[in-house]
Amino acid sequence: MKSTAWLDSLDNRLANQFRFLLEVDRLKTVIRGNRIADASRKENTAEHSWHLALFATVLAEWAADQVDINRVVQMLLLHDIVEIDAGDTPIYEQTEDADHVHGERAAASRIFGLLPDDQAEQFKQLWEEFEAAETADARFAKAVDRLQPILLNHVVGGGTWTDYNMDVHRERSVTIRIAESAPALWAAAESIFADAVANGWLRQIPVGK
Amino acid sequence: MKSTAWLDSLDNRLANQFRFLLEVDRLKTVIRGNRIADASRKENTAEHSWHLALFATVLAEWAADQVDINRVVQMLLLHDIVEIDAGDTPIYEQTEDADHVHGERAAASRIFGLLPDDQAEQFKQLWEEFEAAETADARFAKAVDRLQPILLNHVVGGGTWTDYNMDVHRERSVTIRIAESAPALWAAAESIFADAVANGWLRQIPVGK
Repeated sequence: MKSTAWLDSLDNRLANQFRFLLEVDRLKTVIRGNRIADASRKENTAEHSWHLALFATVLAEWAADQVDINRVVQMLLLHDIVEIDAGDTPIYEQTEDADHVHGERAAASRIFGLLPDDQAEQFKQLWEEFEAAETADARFAKAVDRLQPILLNHVVGGGTWTDYNMDVHRERSVTIRIAESAPALWAAAESIFADAVANGWLRQIPVGK
Repeated sequence: MKSTAWLDSLDNRLANQFRFLLEVDRLKTVIRGNRIADASRKENTAEHSWHLALFATVLAEWAADQVDINRVVQMLLLHDIVEIDAGDTPIYEQTEDADHVHGERAAASRIFGLLPDDQAEQFKQLWEEFEAAETADARFAKAVDRLQPILLNHVVGGGTWTDYNMDVHRERSVTIRIAESAPALWAAAESIFADAVANGWLRQIPVGK
């Protein structure tokens, strides 16, 4: 990226908004584990976030609890911005250790902190709400974030399931939150898992058992 | 993409929603003219749509007219879906000829038509509102769609400006709608143009004059 010295000539509030919008462009270069649907390459986090926003919009009617779809979409547009500093950690490798949590919070402070204070606070609160997964909006957003890679893994014939030699029991355990916030979507996920097992894309039995 | 025959086992409404969500994944492979901010590659339309949704969210306060930011975001998430069939046409090559308009409308009918009828109608109306650019929401969405490539062209030091040997007069003419719906953002764009001319990334004088 070239110098952004020209920003100094702008209204300070607008300059800070532009700094943030240029910084988050880097999410286009954060590469995830799963493939896009034509299997030609892995997905990046920016296009993933766009896809999730559409998933949420289209599937909102299946949420078990009342959700504010506009808040869900805003959360999904922002939810992975911390990966600019922290990188993407595939779900099968995620831990809740203190270092990881600390790293993500530091990233949120730095990146949202580029914005004017009021917007920085508003975005950081939305991100924290998503992370905490306690409100109906956040739980539905998290459910959508689990569902999309299931469809993509199935449509490419394995994806991260075969990369990680995944079995259906473990897969269920990392995606089970879909069941709570959208039972009809969980029933669909179960049907996808069954088909994936039948096709050999998802192991029936854990490795070594 | 593998067979999606498993979808036939689902509730018909949900199956149609999944068919749409898998189809729009192809927007990740539609390549635009402008580069991403680190200049490493050209931008695809899916990640572009995500970036625009964030632009609109962050910059909403600069809209001259009252806008419903949630509708603006929904429009921007959907606005380029027709490019799955029609491809991206760089703004410097766009024409309003009947064939192009007809092609885009056919694409909208086919792709939104994958959804259940009520959602197909709702999304198609939003897309048509964006295309018509008559409401305040659509005009602000269009302004944001013009502004983002200006920032990216500047930050990479030329981008499509140098690709098309663009001059500042023509550039102004294709982005002037920013002036009407967000004067403060237009002032910023003018400041970017001036810096781009000073750096030789945008010609002062049209070619051949």
